[in-house]
Amino acid sequence: TGVATMKFKSPPVNSLSLEFLTEFSISLEKLENNRACRGVIITSAVPKIFSSGLDITEMCGKSVEHYTEFWRALQEMWLRLYGSNMVTVAAVNGSSPAGGCLVALSCDYRIMAENPKFSIGLNEAQLGIVAPFWFKDAFVNVVGHRVAERSLQLGSLHPAPEAHKLGLVDELVPEEKLMEKAAAVMAQWLALPDHARQLTKTMMRKAVLDRLVAHREEDIKNFISFVSKESIQKSLRMYMEMLKKRK
Amino acid sequence: TGVATMKFKSPPVNSLSLEFLTEFSISLEKLENNRACRGVIITSAVPKIFSSGLDITEMCGKSVEHYTEFWRALQEMWLRLYGSNMVTVAAVNGSSPAGGCLVALSCDYRIMAENPKFSIGLNEAQLGIVAPFWFKDAFVNVVGHRVAERSLQLGSLHPAPEAHKLGLVDELVPEEKLMEKAAAVMAQWLALPDHARQLTKTMMRKAVLDRLVAHREEDIKNFISFVSKESIQKSLRMYMEMLKKRK
Amino acid sequence: TGVATMKFKSPPVNSLSLEFLTEFSISLEKLENNRACRGVIITSAVPKIFSSGLDITEMCGKSVEHYTEFWRALQEMWLRLYGSNMVTVAAVNGSSPAGGCLVALSCDYRIMAENPKFSIGLNEAQLGIVAPFWFKDAFVNVVGHRVAERSLQLGSLHPAPEAHKLGLVDELVPEEKLMEKAAAVMAQWLALPDHARQLTKTMMRKAVLDRLVAHREEDIKNFISFVSKESIQKSLRMYMEMLKKRK
Repeated sequence: TGVATMKFKSPPVNSLSLEFLTEFSISLEKLENNRACRGVIITSAVPKIFSSGLDITEMCGKSVEHYTEFWRALQEMWLRLYGSNMVTVAAVNGSSPAGGCLVALSCDYRIMAENPKFSIGLNEAQLGIVAPFWFKDAFVNVVGHRVAERSLQLGSLHPAPEAHKLGLVDELVPEEKLMEKAAAVMAQWLALPDHARQLTKTMMRKAVLDRLVAHREEDIKNFISFVSKESIQKSLRMYMEMLKKRK
Repeated sequence: TGVATMKFKSPPVNSLSLEFLTEFSISLEKLENNRACRGVIITSAVPKIFSSGLDITEMCGKSVEHYTEFWRALQEMWLRLYGSNMVTVAAVNGSSPAGGCLVALSCDYRIMAENPKFSIGLNEAQLGIVAPFWFKDAFVNVVGHRVAERSLQLGSLHPAPEAHKLGLVDELVPEEKLMEKAAAVMAQWLALPDHARQLTKTMMRKAVLDRLVAHREEDIKNFISFVSKESIQKSLRMYMEMLKKRK
Repeated sequence: TGVATMKFKSPPVNSLSLEFLTEFSISLEKLENNRACRGVIITSAVPKIFSSGLDITEMCGKSVEHYTEFWRALQEMWLRLYGSNMVTVAAVNGSSPAGGCLVALSCDYRIMAENPKFSIGLNEAQLGIVAPFWFKDAFVNVVGHRVAERSLQLGSLHPAPEAHKLGLVDELVPEEKLMEKAAAVMAQWLALPDHARQLTKTMMRKAVLDRLVAHREEDIKNFISFVSKESIQKSLRMYMEMLKKRK
């Protein structure tokens, strides 16, 4: 059918570790270069979670070289996903904070399980950190400036019904219908001639992609200088301990 | 009353041919230079169709000189309409795909007959072609980035009720009330002092107008190189034959 | 609690006079420099009116030096308010046209008394004048391009329920609950770590703030040349006389 399904399977919470990001990028690249593949559905094999976002252990007590490599891998993944020539559909079958939300935001279409216990959002501010400008750009392109301004400042995690109301996801369906619906949406998008659709997508997304490409090294330096601060290291460690206790 | 009504009357479907576009521009210019005229209502004299968009015969098997003249005439019409100092109201009394949608998008206010059989949208992608960047800019200014991204990629033609829900048209009224409503809206807009209204309109639209002015020759070259491709010529010919069979 | 309340008290209508604007800026600066203060609630001590906007007497029959000083004070207030590091909540307990609307627009959150007799909007066009580009930028950031284009051209004053529907205010509450609600919203925003929230706010607002900073002198010249026109002086005098008769 020309459609691949990519299932995140990195328990317990599909954290975006350096390894995960690298594999994700390689998989996207392979599919992109495979002429038989025209679309990809992204979902999770882990119950209740789509992706929990950046792996905080990659950001704690590591070397500058490690931070650089990690951040570059994150940029690489996003440039591939947001700029993909394939049709990309996110089947969000669980919660999706921070970097997990970014993955969903970067697809062409977002379907979410209509479970109010599942939430999605760029909640970086809650952790005392700031979403990178390109997370923000992708977010504004989906929900508009005002919703983005409020949601980012509050670090909001929106329960599925609210996310739908805000336009952060396009559609809600019962969880058991999620993959069926994703396949139907994919078929609708693939009914269009690839070339015209791809050029149109590029026209819509190029400005935001170019902005990261132009400021890529600056963005890495910015991340390193931020994450190297003792105050940030401390709050990340506290956050990790809180997560451990929760389990 | 200072209000002109412009009725498109080029059966069967008000295609935007070179001749049509040239006449349209001249009419706009005359009204613009007529101090007695402060507003124009644009509608169709052809049943069920507002305008079917660009005349595909102008894009098939013609010379580079012809393509250049055609595209320049399209740009000229749009620069005049989108940048008009008059109040412009579209009374959309029929379907309005592609270039027809652009005409409506470029007015100050859009009223559409509330007939779900009438649809409107930038459906270029369905034909294997790509809407020019300035169609996209005008579209984003009306419906926002997300709706535009999805609608343009899918080449959607939105039935009137959906178009209203998306903000693509401002209001739906029964077809027999369309002109009455257009006149009432026009009166409301003309109640404002012209000078302040015009400066405000310019402030809102200048960035997008300037972008075409700055890239006008590039946009023409881009169109010619696109339309000269054998693959595009082929799909346009197929599309025309399909249209003929439909009749 | 780290929260200040600023109550506009300049009867009869809290006009933004040179003196008012200067005091407003000084108050904001003091609060900004006071580490104990993390948020400010802005409301009115005058019944039925939040602020009536720019004081027209400052714009009538004065010297170029006066116009310059007045406009610079307006810019200064806005740069401080829109760029404030504090959480800013507008408790809009009355009508709020023109510059009054700008004050509300520049806060992080807007709560309005749900009284349909209270209205809010950038109604400059009704007076034959044009809102400055930075009023427009702040407006577009809140309500989007299309709503702004229409509202600014018509100089609309939106009754509270309509303002809420358009996203111009975030929430409506009964007037007697306004301050209670403002305090609750403030507490929600202050629950976030200041530093991350401030950097996020800057990321969202910097482009628009920078645009005024870059064009500040040009904007002053523009105002002076506009306000010095005899036709504008005449319509402002007529407007003032109409206001006097109303009383």
